Parts: sequence; C-alpha cells; structure tokens
Amino acid sequence: MTPRRSSARIERLLSRFGQWGIDAFLFFDLNNIRYMTGFSGSDGILLIGPDERPRLLVDGRYVTQAKGETRGLELVRMTDKVETLTSLLADLQARVVGFEEAVLSVQLHRLLKAKNRRVKFKPLSSEIDFLRARKSNREIACIRKAADIAAGALQSILPIIKPGICERDIALELEYRMRKEGAEGVSFDTIVASGPNAALPHARPGSRKLAAGDALVIDYGAVYNGYRSDETCTFFIGRVESALKAVYGLVKEAHDRAIEAAVDGRPCKEVDRVAREIISKEGWGDHFGHGTGHGVGLEIHEVPAISVKSERRLEKGMVVTIEPGIYLPGKWGIRIEDTIRVTSGKAEILTKMPKELTVLA
Amino acid sequence: MTPRRSSARIERLLSRFGQWGIDAFLFFDLNNIRYMTGFSGSDGILLIGPDERPRLLVDGRYVTQAKGETRGLELVRMTDKVETLTSLLADLQARVVGFEEAVLSVQLHRLLKAKNRRVKFKPLSSEIDFLRARKSNREIACIRKAADIAAGALQSILPIIKPGICERDIALELEYRMRKEGAEGVSFDTIVASGPNAALPHARPGSRKLAAGDALVIDYGAVYNGYRSDETCTFFIGRVESALKAVYGLVKEAHDRAIEAAVDGRPCKEVDRVAREIISKEGWGDHFGHGTGHGVGLEIHEVPAISVKSERRLEKGMVVTIEPGIYLPGKWGIRIEDTIRVTSGKAEILTKMPKELTVLA
Repeated sequence: MTPRRSSARIERLLSRFGQWGIDAFLFFDLNNIRYMTGFSGSDGILLIGPDERPRLLVDGRYVTQAKGETRGLELVRMTDKVETLTSLLADLQARVVGFEEAVLSVQLHRLLKAKNRRVKFKPLSSEIDFLRARKSNREIACIRKAADIAAGALQSILPIIKPGICERDIALELEYRMRKEGAEGVSFDTIVASGPNAALPHARPGSRKLAAGDALVIDYGAVYNGYRSDETCTFFIGRVESALKAVYGLVKEAHDRAIEAAVDGRPCKEVDRVAREIISKEGWGDHFGHGTGHGVGLEIHEVPAISVKSERRLEKGMVVTIEPGIYLPGKWGIRIEDTIRVTSGKAEILTKMPKELTVLA
Repeated sequence: MTPRRSSARIERLLSRFGQWGIDAFLFFDLNNIRYMTGFSGSDGILLIGPDERPRLLVDGRYVTQAKGETRGLELVRMTDKVETLTSLLADLQARVVGFEEAVLSVQLHRLLKAKNRRVKFKPLSSEIDFLRARKSNREIACIRKAADIAAGALQSILPIIKPGICERDIALELEYRMRKEGAEGVSFDTIVASGPNAALPHARPGSRKLAAGDALVIDYGAVYNGYRSDETCTFFIGRVESALKAVYGLVKEAHDRAIEAAVDGRPCKEVDRVAREIISKEGWGDHFGHGTGHGVGLEIHEVPAISVKSERRLEKGMVVTIEPGIYLPGKWGIRIEDTIRVTSGKAEILTKMPKELTVLA
C-alpha cells in the first residue's frame, strides 16, 4: 500500500484547486471515484488533498478489492463515515473542502459540518460534472467494445423476433446474450416496446406479443469495464405501412444530419435544433418530446445534454448519443439512436447495428 | 385523474404531521414514492399536504405510466423540478415542509430554499426510514413469491454446478432462470463465490472455475412486484473437509438460534448477539465481520439493521434477513441466510432452499 505517484487524473484535479478556492476535495459519487482511482465497489469516499496523497476510504468489505483495483493511494479503513472523515480532516488540517453538491445528502453534509467546525465545505457542481466529459482513447475503446458485444447479441437473437413472441422474452434473451458474450451487465433496463407501447419512450418490456405490422423499438446497451453503450433500433414486423415508412425516413434523416452536425466546438443546442427542425417542418415537432441526446460513459446519462436548453459546446473526445424519435400515443413510436465520438471532423459512430429500415420475420 | 380518497398509507403519514411540526412533506426517494402511491418510474416527486390532496410530479416521459399505476392522486407534469415545486408550494401556501434528509442532495435543497424563502424545509430521517418497516400481508406475499421464484431457479440450475464451471456462468444461468420464471429482475448483483473468493462477503462472480473441495457461496434474490428476496446457500463441491463441516455446523447453529431469537419486541442487537456469541465462543468471532442481518422490502437493505449497534427492537410484520458467516481470508467462506417475517412467536421463514449441509456433484 505504499503510495506511488498520483494518476494524471488526480494531478489534473489538483491543478484546479487554486481556481476553485479549495485545498481538498471529497468525492462521494462512486462513478467519479471509479474514474479517479479504478475502485469499483459500491461504497467508499475519496479524499484528495490537502497534502498530495489521495486517500480512499472503504469499509471492511472492500479492503481487499480496493487493494487489487487501485494504486498510488492510501487506503483507509472506514468504520463510520463521519468519524473517519472527521479525524482525517483534523489530522490533515484541511481548511476549504470541495464536494459534489449534486450527490452529497443534506444529512451527511449536516453531520460533517457539525463535527468539523473549522472546515469550510464548498459545494461544486458543473466543475465536477465535466471532469469525465472528454473520454480518453482507453475509455472509448471500452465503449466501442461494449457496443460490439451489444450488437453481436442483438444480431444473434434477430431470428426469434417474430409475431407471437412477447416483449419480455426478447429483452431477456438479449440481456442473456450480452452477458454471455462478455458484458458485465446491461447499461440500463432494456427497452423492448412494440406496437402502441413503442409510443412510450421509457416503456418496460411486458407481455404484449408482437404482431405483423408492429414497429418494434429496442433500446439497449452493454457494460464493459464499467463503460456503457447505448443504441436504439426500430424494426418492423412482417410488413411496414407506407405512412410509417415515411416517418422512419424522417427520423433517419434527423439522426443522420444531427450526427453530421456533431463536431468539436458546435453548441449542443444547435445539434438538437438540426434534428428538431427536420422533424418539425414535417409537422411532427410535438411528437418528439425528448432531447436529441446525452453523454455516455461510466453512467448512462452524463453531460453534455444535447437538448434545447443545453448551454455547452461539443468537444473532441466527448461521447454522446444521437437519438431522435417520433411517437404517436396509442399507436406507434420510432426512434433511431447511435452513440458517437466527437472529433474535429466526421464523428465516429461507436454503435454497430445498421440503421436502414429493416423488416423482420 | 379525479383524485379519489387518499390511501391508508397517506392517511397514516398525514396523521403524524402535527407531531413532526410540518404541514407538508416532499418525497424524493423513489422507493418511498412507490410505497405511497404505486408509481414505479425512475424519476418523480411526491408532495403530500398542506391540503389533503397528494400530488405526484412526473416529467413527460412518465405521465402515462403514472396514470396507470396510481389512483387518488393529482398528477402534475413537471418541467423543471425547482420551478414546478416552487409554484406549487406558493399556490398551496405551504409553511413547513418535511423532506428526506438522507436522500435530498445539498444542491436541490439549496435551490429550493433560495426560491421558496417563505417556506421552512424541515429535515426528517429516522421517522421516515421506519415508514416501510412493518410489512402488510400483501407486501409479504410479494416477498414470499420472490423467494419462491428464486429458489425454483436455483434448484433448476443445481445440475450444472460441478467442477469446471466458472462462477460467472453460474450467476448468469441463475439470473436468467429467475427472470424466465417471472422475476422482474434480481434483488442485487448475484454473488457466486467459490474457494478463496468465498472469503469476500461481497465478491463478484468471476472466471474462477469450481474445483472439488470448494465451498461455494451463492447469495441471490429475485424481485417480484418491486419486492425483493434475499437468501444465501453455501454448497460444497464434490466433498467436504471435516474442518469445514464443523464450521458449517457452527454457522448453521448461529443462524438457527438467531431466527429463534427474532421475535416481536426483541432488541435487534440481542438477535445479533445470539449469533455472534455462538460463533465467538468457538474462536471465530474475528472472522464474522458483518452484521447478522437487515430489513428487506422494496430495497435490499432497509431498516432495521440487526447488528451490534442497532438501537431498535423487532416488530411484528418486519421482514429481515438472518445471515451469519465465517470467513478465512485466502481460504474459504461460509454464510447461511434466510429472509424471515417477524411474528409474536416463531418467525416465518420466507426463503425456501434447504439449509442442511449439501455436497453437490
């Protein structure tokens, strides 16, 4: 457990302490802790500063795991969060300690303040949200691998997708195949929504059986080394009505043009506008009720949002989804989604399924 | 969407407002919201009071689902959490609003306070933790059903558990079978830990292949209608060494005696002590490094804790695990766990696998 040199990510964080007016930072968000240290357990706290020796606090369950997963850190066995932190902060004479305002609970904040009256706790939010926004090549390789596993699994189950099978069974087989092919888990609860259910962007797979003429939305992803893929295919079962064919074409157009627009430096809201205008000018604007996309990485929803409200610009190395959709309540829904890597030119599409109109069975 | 009568749970909450000194309560915890209303979406806020008309705030994605899952509520379509809440609290002239201190983030708390200067936000914690502690017969039926599904799945995969299969494949097949048999999901990431890995109470299933002589810990559960089961079996592969047989007997004795001790009115720490003393008097006390159990319900870890520190007593209708274990780092681990329902007499064991020493393959 001899501390070795801090990782580049920790150095980068330390370099901002002056600007943020802090001499230490407490991480409670487990995804941020994983990003900073490699530790993937389900409980822990990371203290960086005021000296240059990062400390990972874990309880007895995670000592062995933390030793195996991290390096360059001092591991502290935590009994009670507040007690262990209080004694550390006092020993280290921390004065201004930043924390993730969107993560820390009012309760833990109150207890920490009460026990550490000489410490000023300073909330930080967007500064921290963007720590993970630009992905390294290693991170992108993990997302690419997750996307490969996911697409391989979906391809392998296409033969079972036909009239009569229910949504839940498709989701189950797809998740099983992803795990079997090496996924650590699924990026989120798989959405398999057919016919009128497809009009609900967050539908849960149920007992509805596929019927000829259905549009079938499958929104799914795999996790590899902690990193998630996110992709949506809309298939048609048996046949496709000409009206739906036209809507599919429109969503595809919005999807393709938004991907073209997604280059380094472009405001996120402009990318959203590209997709939204294509859909709106054909009269479907009110039926595209969600944003065009979002960042993806260790979490399924990360910054930046690609939406009407977003105030950010895309940057090289960001990984985002592009996922326009049109939904007619009670009738059908169509969504097409890829996960892309932003570059200074044409984005790299990390997800692998073809997005041309596909009629199955 | 005409509000019908409030549910009994909401009435029960309202009846405590006087004692807590509040005229409204804001729920952010999605499990509490599900408990109070039936809504099972992944985002929403529940406002109860200051009038007697509970309001569920959901964004556009969840309006249809919320309509289908709830009754007796007013559904409010939420655009921005802070804006929607601010306008509601002003309209309703709320004065003192309770909230879940352990759940609300410092950030949302700050934004709400800034926009609602006339409202006093009052943190509540243990009062709220115990809302769900005593389970109704309907809730217990769901946990029992979850336990049935789980045990059926484990029984069905026992034939594949033999030397040569890896932990991850056992976990995957078990999870698949639970889902296939009607589980909505798994209670938590299934633990399948063999040989030395079994010494880590929170091990993740990996590529280690079972070998003759291994102890194999399987800690698993199914979700049914939102409710979770939790059970641990320790099997022996091929043969069992006499030393391990004795340890198994000791853990089983601790488990059985703790279940006998778990009756209405008994302090939780006494139940823990019963198990701990049996293990300690044979010299294994330092190798039982976790609590004896915990509440289970909509979440896998609920109140009450059954541990050295617990200050609570068991009550009729509580559902808790009893799960003593002994772990020898680098060598083996043995844990035996059932989920039980506390009554005024003998507890009902809700989990279904036999806990006699079992040698497989």
